[in-house]
Amino acid sequence: MKIVVTGGAGFIPSHVIDRLLKEGHQVLSLDNFTLGTRKHFEHNLTNPNFKFVEADVAQEEKVNQIFAEFKPECVFHLAANSDIGAGSYNAKVDLKNTFETTATVLEAMRKNNVKQIIFASTSAIYGQTEGAISENSGPLMPQSNYGAAKLAAEGFIFAFAHVHNFKTWIFRFPNVCGPRGTHGVFINFLRFLKADPTQITVAQDGKQAKPYIYVSDLVDAIMLGWQKSQEQYNVFNIGNTPLVSVNEILAMLTREKGIENIKVNYTGGPAWPGDVATYTFDDSKIRALGYDPKYNSKEATEKTAHELVHNPEAYIAVYRD
Amino acid sequence: MKIVVTGGAGFIPSHVIDRLLKEGHQVLSLDNFTLGTRKHFEHNLTNPNFKFVEADVAQEEKVNQIFAEFKPECVFHLAANSDIGAGSYNAKVDLKNTFETTATVLEAMRKNNVKQIIFASTSAIYGQTEGAISENSGPLMPQSNYGAAKLAAEGFIFAFAHVHNFKTWIFRFPNVCGPRGTHGVFINFLRFLKADPTQITVAQDGKQAKPYIYVSDLVDAIMLGWQKSQEQYNVFNIGNTPLVSVNEILAMLTREKGIENIKVNYTGGPAWPGDVATYTFDDSKIRALGYDPKYNSKEATEKTAHELVHNPEAYIAVYRD
Repeated sequence: MKIVVTGGAGFIPSHVIDRLLKEGHQVLSLDNFTLGTRKHFEHNLTNPNFKFVEADVAQEEKVNQIFAEFKPECVFHLAANSDIGAGSYNAKVDLKNTFETTATVLEAMRKNNVKQIIFASTSAIYGQTEGAISENSGPLMPQSNYGAAKLAAEGFIFAFAHVHNFKTWIFRFPNVCGPRGTHGVFINFLRFLKADPTQITVAQDGKQAKPYIYVSDLVDAIMLGWQKSQEQYNVFNIGNTPLVSVNEILAMLTREKGIENIKVNYTGGPAWPGDVATYTFDDSKIRALGYDPKYNSKEATEKTAHELVHNPEAYIAVYRD
Repeated sequence: MKIVVTGGAGFIPSHVIDRLLKEGHQVLSLDNFTLGTRKHFEHNLTNPNFKFVEADVAQEEKVNQIFAEFKPECVFHLAANSDIGAGSYNAKVDLKNTFETTATVLEAMRKNNVKQIIFASTSAIYGQTEGAISENSGPLMPQSNYGAAKLAAEGFIFAFAHVHNFKTWIFRFPNVCGPRGTHGVFINFLRFLKADPTQITVAQDGKQAKPYIYVSDLVDAIMLGWQKSQEQYNVFNIGNTPLVSVNEILAMLTREKGIENIKVNYTGGPAWPGDVATYTFDDSKIRALGYDPKYNSKEATEKTAHELVHNPEAYIAVYRD
């Protein structure tokens, strides 16, 4: 199948591309290198089934032209501002890179008769919640621009799907870790530890805890949902257990680095304005299709901490830092 | 209180302005006359507490400048593309007039330290539903660009409210009727009947039925929620009973006009792509505050049909037609 993957230089999209190529699809990827790097996909440039075009996915005319020439049957729309903290200080980052890219992709799909869209959504659309959140939970009250932009994108995807008869797969991701990560708690902590291994600053009380998924398990879940669920609107929460706290991640990294007796200063405030301290997904819907992650949250974070310290080359963003 | 009302030349906002002025507030209103008319507010131009500025609410610099000069304490953000059918054929209409205006207002509030926003939302954010929809119902899967743009706007309002400590009142409106309406089923039918009183085309089977509210009751509900509910996020469905069908509205208008034996051609399809044929609001939350509309849905629609036929001057859009 001919597939467009937006954001192909980024963390998760580059893994999705690897998988799609392995399964024999023809992939055209777009990215403007806001957060990603060519290193994430350059191993595929010799593959005749892969093509990369440097483009801002919010640029309507260019995206439309690329769709008209490539004639995709399906779009994995994964381009977004994935750095939640950065967007929290400037709404324009999420408005342009997350929301406007979606509006552009939807228009290009409509004009070029593309009928399938897979979208990377997030737990952040739910905002502060209590108990396990299912796909049908309400209200949806995001508390970050990141969550708002993803919710806004979902809204227009549903409307376009209804009016133009698209099929859509919306995956609401938990925290994701593993090779090629470009930012987030692991990389922040490593940078801090490199600068000063004797003390570190941690948001809140460090007990804020989230589900983490190793990126290969996330790609498995996406492929599973896309291939096995054939409703017009396919929405899936992708969860994992147990919750892992920021304190636990710090402990994993200091252990791997052989750092002892570090002094931790707790801020008592959120990591960034709008950070949701904790959430739990009810992901029984995707599990009913056979989703069974190889690594639980603890294993996923421990594996990531180990690799980051002992094999940083797999973590491009750290490597180039 | 100094209040900005966006969209003041429009149907509902012009009634809100009348009420705010009556209660002694200072009102500055913005509109670019996309759908509204100067006739809707010109009776207030001699009031020293009222000021009108012609402006596109999506124009960031201008809106910011107006906020900086007027120094409002509160914004009633009511500007939007209210013609759902028009937006269904071109997503850009809702993207610009509903979503971008909201992003602009939120940024202007942030920059000018305005802490209260009242927002006109809609039943359309819920999409196709079963049973009575409460404020916490999910999932939110709009099926029109109109609903998507309102949901997108809500998302950013929640995020800004959280991060910048705004208080927000979000009112999800049902169908609204009464003086100064600019479009919708009543006006469409009157135009058709004027062109040919012997036959008329009706969407679906005409049995699609919705709750209708008379605009003065809607303004009562908005003022009630704003004044009596003081959470940080105040979200209200505004409902009414009973559901009134399109066939009933046609019968009211033909009766008022003395038309008998009209031939009705049913299309079997929706009035526009994305129209939600029917919905029911659970509005117990606003009723608990004392909301008790003077006109039920049947009375509201009958009153509107009567006035439209016998007092069209109150219905500017029809009068100027």
